[in-house]
Amino acid sequence: MEQRIKVQGSLFAKHFSAHLDLVRLADGRISERIRIQHPEAAAVVALTDPDTLVMVRQWRYAVARETLEIPAGKVDPGEAATACARRELTEETGYRAQRMQELFSYYPAIGYSDEVIRIYAAGGLEQQAIADNGDEISGVELIRLDRIFDLIAEGVIQDGKTVIGLALVRERIERGELAADFFA
Amino acid sequence: MEQRIKVQGSLFAKHFSAHLDLVRLADGRISERIRIQHPEAAAVVALTDPDTLVMVRQWRYAVARETLEIPAGKVDPGEAATACARRELTEETGYRAQRMQELFSYYPAIGYSDEVIRIYAAGGLEQQAIADNGDEISGVELIRLDRIFDLIAEGVIQDGKTVIGLALVRERIERGELAADFFA
Repeated sequence: MEQRIKVQGSLFAKHFSAHLDLVRLADGRISERIRIQHPEAAAVVALTDPDTLVMVRQWRYAVARETLEIPAGKVDPGEAATACARRELTEETGYRAQRMQELFSYYPAIGYSDEVIRIYAAGGLEQQAIADNGDEISGVELIRLDRIFDLIAEGVIQDGKTVIGLALVRERIERGELAADFFA
Repeated sequence: MEQRIKVQGSLFAKHFSAHLDLVRLADGRISERIRIQHPEAAAVVALTDPDTLVMVRQWRYAVARETLEIPAGKVDPGEAATACARRELTEETGYRAQRMQELFSYYPAIGYSDEVIRIYAAGGLEQQAIADNGDEISGVELIRLDRIFDLIAEGVIQDGKTVIGLALVRERIERGELAADFFA
């Protein structure tokens, strides 16, 4: 157990914040901890058919490169995580999902962030509209599922939530916990 | 592409820092980004035999709870990531590994952190010493591998690098890219 003594400094962005805390460690010593205070996020493993995954290309400022990821975003205040997952899928890709199933929630950066990412599977996709993704998303790509683990092994996919989402979808299908026709 | 105009504020902890940047977005608008500047980290999927995983219990200040994770830590300045993986395994669990294989590198929190986690498989374990883990680790646990996906499904394991490491070890074994006797 580590106890906060005081917050020594803070940085505030529009949707989340960073803090430098003075803490008392379990053995009584005093130390400092950086802590990101972040809203929940939702990410979506969306398949147009059982073999085809919807991914987005996106510039990521923190790592200064464009990445290939599953659609995701922060939950708005008062919004349910499932609603956020549906909203981000449609905003970023133009697809609307008839079926959503929550797969898993996890801490992406447990050493310094309280962020929780909830991952959903989405099936029964219908193309609704040109994606309303502003300048956030530079492209939507349909990727064959049997290529995904090669793209991971080759380092094309390096985003944590994407790897976790795909591994868990496969696991749930193998265990029979995602119906065979969920993505049909 | 998003360009840094200036750093508006910073927080410095012992091993990493947080920054609030003023940035120019791709469409010319001005916005703010919080960015964690973090050293590389290494994490280890260590099996004492093909069916048994070494895990650690640890208090995590950012999420205010104790968690069950694979051993991991930050790479020291000038240290190779493989050496860090070996060091963290021994410091946190007391085991030394005869065999190490790099599995994958990824961004855990791509929206706001430049951290890269390198995940290793470790086999040929030998118990060397009582773990020298200070007050960081509260316990070392040996978990049967066939229970892991239940622990993930039950929410006992909620740490991203742990889920990714285990999914990739399984993948590599199935693809024959980790030798059958690697963990023997």
